[in-house]
Amino acid sequence: MDAIERLIRPRSVAIIGASADPSKTSGRPVSYLRKHGFAGAIYPVNPKVAEIDGLTCYPDVASLPDVPDVGIVLLGAERAHVAVRELSERGAAAAIVLASGFTETGAEGAARQQQLMQAAGAMRILGPNTIGLVNLTDNIVLSASGALAMDHFVAGSIGLISQSGGILGALLSRAAARGVGLSKLVSTSNEADLELADFIDSLAGDSATKVIALYIEAIRNPARFREAVLKARRAGKPVVAFKIGRSEAGAQAAVSHTGALAGSDRMYDALFRQLGVIRARTFEDLLDIPAALAAGRKLAGRRVAILTSTGGAGTIVSDSLGVAGFVTPAPDAETAAQLRSLQSGSHANLDRNPIDVTLAGLQPDLLRGAIRILLASPSYDALVVIAGSSAVGSPGLMADAIHDCLPLSDKPVIAYVSPHAPEVVSVLTRRGVPAYTSAESCTAALDGLLRAGMPEQVQTSGLSRTSADISDIPTGSLDEAQAKALFARFGIPVAAERVVATSDDAEQAARDLGGRVVLKILSREIAHKSDVGGVAVNLTTDTIGERLTAMADEVETRTGTRPRQFLVQEMISGGVEIILGMHRDSLGTAILLGMGGVAAELFKDTTMRLLPPSGGLDLSEAKAMARDLVTWPLLDGFRGRPKYDVDALANAVVAFSHMVAQLGDRLAEAEINPVFVLPAGQGVKAADGLVVLNV
Amino acid sequence: MDAIERLIRPRSVAIIGASADPSKTSGRPVSYLRKHGFAGAIYPVNPKVAEIDGLTCYPDVASLPDVPDVGIVLLGAERAHVAVRELSERGAAAAIVLASGFTETGAEGAARQQQLMQAAGAMRILGPNTIGLVNLTDNIVLSASGALAMDHFVAGSIGLISQSGGILGALLSRAAARGVGLSKLVSTSNEADLELADFIDSLAGDSATKVIALYIEAIRNPARFREAVLKARRAGKPVVAFKIGRSEAGAQAAVSHTGALAGSDRMYDALFRQLGVIRARTFEDLLDIPAALAAGRKLAGRRVAILTSTGGAGTIVSDSLGVAGFVTPAPDAETAAQLRSLQSGSHANLDRNPIDVTLAGLQPDLLRGAIRILLASPSYDALVVIAGSSAVGSPGLMADAIHDCLPLSDKPVIAYVSPHAPEVVSVLTRRGVPAYTSAESCTAALDGLLRAGMPEQVQTSGLSRTSADISDIPTGSLDEAQAKALFARFGIPVAAERVVATSDDAEQAARDLGGRVVLKILSREIAHKSDVGGVAVNLTTDTIGERLTAMADEVETRTGTRPRQFLVQEMISGGVEIILGMHRDSLGTAILLGMGGVAAELFKDTTMRLLPPSGGLDLSEAKAMARDLVTWPLLDGFRGRPKYDVDALANAVVAFSHMVAQLGDRLAEAEINPVFVLPAGQGVKAADGLVVLNV
Repeated sequence: MDAIERLIRPRSVAIIGASADPSKTSGRPVSYLRKHGFAGAIYPVNPKVAEIDGLTCYPDVASLPDVPDVGIVLLGAERAHVAVRELSERGAAAAIVLASGFTETGAEGAARQQQLMQAAGAMRILGPNTIGLVNLTDNIVLSASGALAMDHFVAGSIGLISQSGGILGALLSRAAARGVGLSKLVSTSNEADLELADFIDSLAGDSATKVIALYIEAIRNPARFREAVLKARRAGKPVVAFKIGRSEAGAQAAVSHTGALAGSDRMYDALFRQLGVIRARTFEDLLDIPAALAAGRKLAGRRVAILTSTGGAGTIVSDSLGVAGFVTPAPDAETAAQLRSLQSGSHANLDRNPIDVTLAGLQPDLLRGAIRILLASPSYDALVVIAGSSAVGSPGLMADAIHDCLPLSDKPVIAYVSPHAPEVVSVLTRRGVPAYTSAESCTAALDGLLRAGMPEQVQTSGLSRTSADISDIPTGSLDEAQAKALFARFGIPVAAERVVATSDDAEQAARDLGGRVVLKILSREIAHKSDVGGVAVNLTTDTIGERLTAMADEVETRTGTRPRQFLVQEMISGGVEIILGMHRDSLGTAILLGMGGVAAELFKDTTMRLLPPSGGLDLSEAKAMARDLVTWPLLDGFRGRPKYDVDALANAVVAFSHMVAQLGDRLAEAEINPVFVLPAGQGVKAADGLVVLNV
Repeated sequence: MDAIERLIRPRSVAIIGASADPSKTSGRPVSYLRKHGFAGAIYPVNPKVAEIDGLTCYPDVASLPDVPDVGIVLLGAERAHVAVRELSERGAAAAIVLASGFTETGAEGAARQQQLMQAAGAMRILGPNTIGLVNLTDNIVLSASGALAMDHFVAGSIGLISQSGGILGALLSRAAARGVGLSKLVSTSNEADLELADFIDSLAGDSATKVIALYIEAIRNPARFREAVLKARRAGKPVVAFKIGRSEAGAQAAVSHTGALAGSDRMYDALFRQLGVIRARTFEDLLDIPAALAAGRKLAGRRVAILTSTGGAGTIVSDSLGVAGFVTPAPDAETAAQLRSLQSGSHANLDRNPIDVTLAGLQPDLLRGAIRILLASPSYDALVVIAGSSAVGSPGLMADAIHDCLPLSDKPVIAYVSPHAPEVVSVLTRRGVPAYTSAESCTAALDGLLRAGMPEQVQTSGLSRTSADISDIPTGSLDEAQAKALFARFGIPVAAERVVATSDDAEQAARDLGGRVVLKILSREIAHKSDVGGVAVNLTTDTIGERLTAMADEVETRTGTRPRQFLVQEMISGGVEIILGMHRDSLGTAILLGMGGVAAELFKDTTMRLLPPSGGLDLSEAKAMARDLVTWPLLDGFRGRPKYDVDALANAVVAFSHMVAQLGDRLAEAEINPVFVLPAGQGVKAADGLVVLNV
């Protein structure tokens, strides 16, 4: 057994600083271990107490009769390291350190955390600032969370890892109330040692866990996270994540909570999408989606049947599903005929959707009949059953009726409970019918099931490609000509151009380039050329000489320096303007593709892909990026416009990504803005660009 | 007392078709009336029964000892009209008809509903297909909803009107569980007679009601709705509405539910915004927002303090608030110093936001101190208090601490309850601190408070304006020249143009119009000129003659008809393209303003305003429309671009709206696409347009 295995399934636990008073936080771990039926040895450690609830209490770790697998350290931040050192020396596998007052509080706390890690030596640390670990599969509670004061939990197949202790307690109590079954819960908090990836990896191999749910404030180690998630996916276990930091306010709050600096939220979005991690949009979704996944049924499409005994609620669910792109078609003729045969009377609305079976909650046979027909119907991929007030009095009636039909098909069946009826929610969920009290939760659950069925988009490794020779590239800000030369070396087509110094040279260059040209100053210092009068378009051989002199004058007036070099560039027209760039932060390096033009810029129509661990993007990924754009139709023949050269664009994206990958940390900034995408077959041309290389 | 007053506060109620078995739906009304303490006379009517639970049961309405204020009709759809006629003849104020099987089921049901209304005569009808009415202020329950089987409700100040009976029951039970107090609940359902507007009007004058909440499937009478909402707003009562039909699926489901056809959802959005109705985005918001409004406190800005004893939950709330545009700044120095003085120890995070007071749920004095400081702080407009697991054991402790501080300020104070703790939610809400279990609910609540403080944008009447003479305008589809002439007559500037038939005329026209022109075919039949080769731009005096002949040939080849007339129009460049149109459906007539250009079209960057009951929009409304556009910066000098003539655009919008208003139902379609907005001071020019007039 490795250390994490021993931490999750210890045979013996020492509780350092245990109190005999179970109402105190330090009294809880011993009390909870016993209350929830821990079968191993419990060693309270406290020099001031002889016995806790009939258990011998030891004065120190050295006095313990045996090596504990795990030590729960309840001492304060200043003394925790002492107990940690003793546990390590005794040979414990891991210590759980509950105290706060470490990196999350600033420099002094960070030093304390370092001291703690030194004391740990080879022993693993969970925390500090953690609420601990709960293994519901094996009735092992290593935690001081007040949520564990409850008597009953539902053991199940959802493994939950939280970077916040309080959130672990909230999820534990919320899951219990809903009848949602959990396998393991871990609060990693400060992650001085053991982190998200360690437990994702562990749960990927845990036979009791089928779904992994994550509460994330920041991923400290993206490479390990990636590997662990891919292992879970290979094991057929969907991963659902709620990530704080969608807003600046939330990101700031997370920093002061556990002291971790997060990357940009859009980078997380890209990472999750690429790894096939299902992102929970709200905190509620972090239970809603796993609850649906834990039922283990497959969603093959977007067609949903809604079976209801109360019209309004069916309408609400239908509306919410519609907003998210699901459809609720009426039954086909055969299905409708079968449904009609179930119920007499002229008022039954059995051939519509929502399918209205009046008072079905009190007529289980009618319900069974309708569910069988809908599960067998070729018109639907999933079924939502609405529980109205008729179900409140006898929740088991409806739950049993649905439960009996589940083996007939593997289509997902979920429930929406319209009145306040917590017992109905819990009974349904425990019998395999995940139940929700909001239409948005139903929608999130079905959406999660759909996304769980999609393959991850991850490239396992970067594309191998002959690398370009870049030994002669200077450092610092490149000028435009140097930047484009660098792009060209990696295979990105650039606009034809000449570097000139005089009006005569400029005239000759304009002649060489076909007569209509653009004139720009060439400078490593001036980033925004047009702001200083340093760009002129649509010039001809006749006008360029005079314009060059005027430009030199204007730039000199505005900047105090007379430009000595200019770029004469072919004039490109009839193309679509695209922005191609990169973004790097703590999560990694991403390629950014965006539509140019002011309207698209106002809508921030961009998409991102993180680079694989080595190398660049592949062609299919590059094409997928272009299709991500809302303005993709502008490239794809929208309203009789021409089709543009998307293949050439994708090649340019791949080439740019290889440049970024090869330059690695040498590259501080790189952007092509714009690259013109020409009509199909005519390629692309980089028309302006920026590169900054670190020294 | 008028009839609606008697319906809501009856002194006597007859129940036609009452059953002696309280477990049957028909047994519920008598049982509920007694259970919830109705003080007036109860007259069960059923020829087969002599007595129900000690009450005399009458064989028919004629035998009743007195005229009942209200009759609850429990008979089926086929026989309901008989009881209704008898009640009307006896002089009852209103009948509540529960049976379904009317307009919502099709033609046969619609005929039945008409028969019912004839039988009612001067008596008012609530329903049919309704679950009835509940007056919690006066303990009067006129309903068969299973939700009323509960023993206790919380009487309060939220009046609720639902177009669905099942939804009324769901809201009633959900509100009760959360401690949210309601005043009156009405299910209007089929609205054969009494409708939404009647009860909005009534609740506007009801002293027990401070907030009005609406569940809407379709507004059948927009004019009356408008008047009733304005009356409520004048009485200082915010109106919150959840409206089904955000998606096509939901709209379809609503049609089959109560048989009402709704207008487009965007029209509802415009109507609600103009009337100052706060739209609930989800069904949950329909209780969440009114619960916050009912506390009666004012939100003056977007700065929120979060006081928490559990870090993770504070972070979640902060993140959700940030997404919605709220800010959670750290306390100012003075506030921070006051907070620090509350708690000793180096680990307290009292100068950040979320403001972390460890275990505050168990230390009411600490909580009181912190709340007092935050309510008095100039840094915040509102306070969210987070209840963690420490509050679960003693919910009253926290509720009392907050409650005690409320009189110190009128800033809103709400609570987020992190663990599953329904008792904490209920106790807090009942003591004046609306409590929520999701961060999105907290955000919706604060957003609702903010919107409640904004003035409605409604124009009380259309602008008076000299109307144009339109007696000579033909009917049917106008050709482009006729359409523009109509626009011009209402004061909209149009591009200079000439109608021509020959190449010679075209050359002369091009000369007159300054040399560079556009040539288009002129036809009342062909709507999409460019699709048949009927548009050519950037022509000169030299080229236009030949181009005209070529165009005539091409159009003849494509359509089989040789065009006889052409339009030569000045070439407009350097403007921003705008779309100006109208939309009419069951809700009314709206003016639509949208950005032109393909990118903006892909993002559907448009905005709408409903016309006031008479006349057009005013100038401030027209300017506000332009500012609604996401691409508004394109008109407003974005990134060094010129400022465009927004005043002229607003004048054109006003003129267009007056044209639409004056033409009224004669106008089937009207659109100017594009209208070019020129640089500031240069005006606008309508360059193409479409008008269809009804015969």
